[in-house]
Amino acid sequence: MKNIYIIGVGLIGGSLAKDIKKLDPEVIIHGISRKQTTLDKALSLNLIDKKATLEDIVNADLVIVAIPVDTTVKMLPMLLDKIPETGLIVDAGSTKKDICKVVENHPKRRNFLASHPIAGTEYSGPEAAISGLFEGKTNIICEVEKTAFKLQEKALKLFESLGMRIRYMNPEAHDKHIAYVSHLSHISSFMLGKTVIEKEKNERDIFDMAGSGFASTVRLAKSSPEMWTPIFKQNKVNVIETLDEYINNLRQFKQFMEQDDFEAIYNEMKDTNYIKQILEGIA
Amino acid sequence: MKNIYIIGVGLIGGSLAKDIKKLDPEVIIHGISRKQTTLDKALSLNLIDKKATLEDIVNADLVIVAIPVDTTVKMLPMLLDKIPETGLIVDAGSTKKDICKVVENHPKRRNFLASHPIAGTEYSGPEAAISGLFEGKTNIICEVEKTAFKLQEKALKLFESLGMRIRYMNPEAHDKHIAYVSHLSHISSFMLGKTVIEKEKNERDIFDMAGSGFASTVRLAKSSPEMWTPIFKQNKVNVIETLDEYINNLRQFKQFMEQDDFEAIYNEMKDTNYIKQILEGIA
Repeated sequence: MKNIYIIGVGLIGGSLAKDIKKLDPEVIIHGISRKQTTLDKALSLNLIDKKATLEDIVNADLVIVAIPVDTTVKMLPMLLDKIPETGLIVDAGSTKKDICKVVENHPKRRNFLASHPIAGTEYSGPEAAISGLFEGKTNIICEVEKTAFKLQEKALKLFESLGMRIRYMNPEAHDKHIAYVSHLSHISSFMLGKTVIEKEKNERDIFDMAGSGFASTVRLAKSSPEMWTPIFKQNKVNVIETLDEYINNLRQFKQFMEQDDFEAIYNEMKDTNYIKQILEGIA
Repeated sequence: MKNIYIIGVGLIGGSLAKDIKKLDPEVIIHGISRKQTTLDKALSLNLIDKKATLEDIVNADLVIVAIPVDTTVKMLPMLLDKIPETGLIVDAGSTKKDICKVVENHPKRRNFLASHPIAGTEYSGPEAAISGLFEGKTNIICEVEKTAFKLQEKALKLFESLGMRIRYMNPEAHDKHIAYVSHLSHISSFMLGKTVIEKEKNERDIFDMAGSGFASTVRLAKSSPEMWTPIFKQNKVNVIETLDEYINNLRQFKQFMEQDDFEAIYNEMKDTNYIKQILEGIA
């Protein structure tokens, strides 16, 4: 691979750029963005070698699409129109069903690989790009059989050299499960932040009382609304289901408290401590 | 201070023991616990110099009570009965109203200082004790005026040498605000863990999909039910209030999604991004 085009040089696109350049300094990383200021920043941070436009991807060996998922759905057919026969487009979106759907009948479907690297931080933009973000992380690949075999190989080799573990899944299963293990966490965090800000907005000193536990639980409430609004929109049905279950569990906890059933409160927590074993698997 | 007795040599008591010993190797740290196994472990980890019993606190310069808050309420009057005139009892509980209440008319009220060091991790027991846990953290002192001045001085000097910032607050205000910035975080985390475990318990592989965001948001769900059940019980009214507001915010978020009002979803998140500034104050 010589010419890699990254559309969206923010946290994910920029971090990929950094690691790819490190792995192979011969590669030329071309950055594409809606905003000139983003490209200028990416260039000054040495994330990209050159600025480019969408027209230029006719020269691409690889195009990485790391933009909000609604824009991915809008642009992907047009990107596939432009990509050369030997080129591959890979996305990094947190939803997979709508993205796979929009290209299912595209004549160049074989030039696209649907992927979701489960990596990130709560920050965004080119300044948020960091080295080694993907090391040891999971990358979920959907509908791998629909991508040309040689292009699959090329992408998988890259993902592995970035240190990622590959898992295969269909887009529906991806969107359903990711709603639980990622999308719901973001909403629980955003609403926790909201609840506390509303209550305490006139008592700023109160936040002196907040410790590392609060910081950890609301960390995701710093996430980008530009990125997350389209994710919730595309995964609406699954996310609403997770919210229903989460709200019911909270209401039941509250009810146990109202009924002074602290044995039940104890058991709720004791049972959920099982999360320790699960988190050991993640860490 | 020569003889310090620590009742409860777990995460908080053990970490205090470590730092105090480091500051002044001449001090003798006596450990007291319901369980012999805990004391044996604390001894083998060098957290304490000696095992002791409650009777021994007649010799104490300082007693630190770091046990579940219901046990603190039960034991505190009896501990005050035993403490010498020159000795001080300090607690570390996450609630303050009931603890202050139970000793308000005790003849030796002046030998007690109500405190809440806002520090901890999700782990518990002597093995969880770590050095430097209190460095840069806030310690909330309640009803400072009810403690003998010389004993206040002694305690404040210790807290400051441990690196803590002191804040003064009345017990009611403490319990109200801590419900928002600490107790609610724990419930939101426990219920998130519960929701995901319930859904995914038969599909353990799914947790491969969970990333650092999920890990951060459910971290507090590893916390000790033994410690947290009595906290929720003592702070029931305030905690139920926070839960009502949190549940309402979640329901409104869900409703916006059901109504396809993604502009509102965007705004909810954008407004809550303000948490960034708040967290900078904490970190």
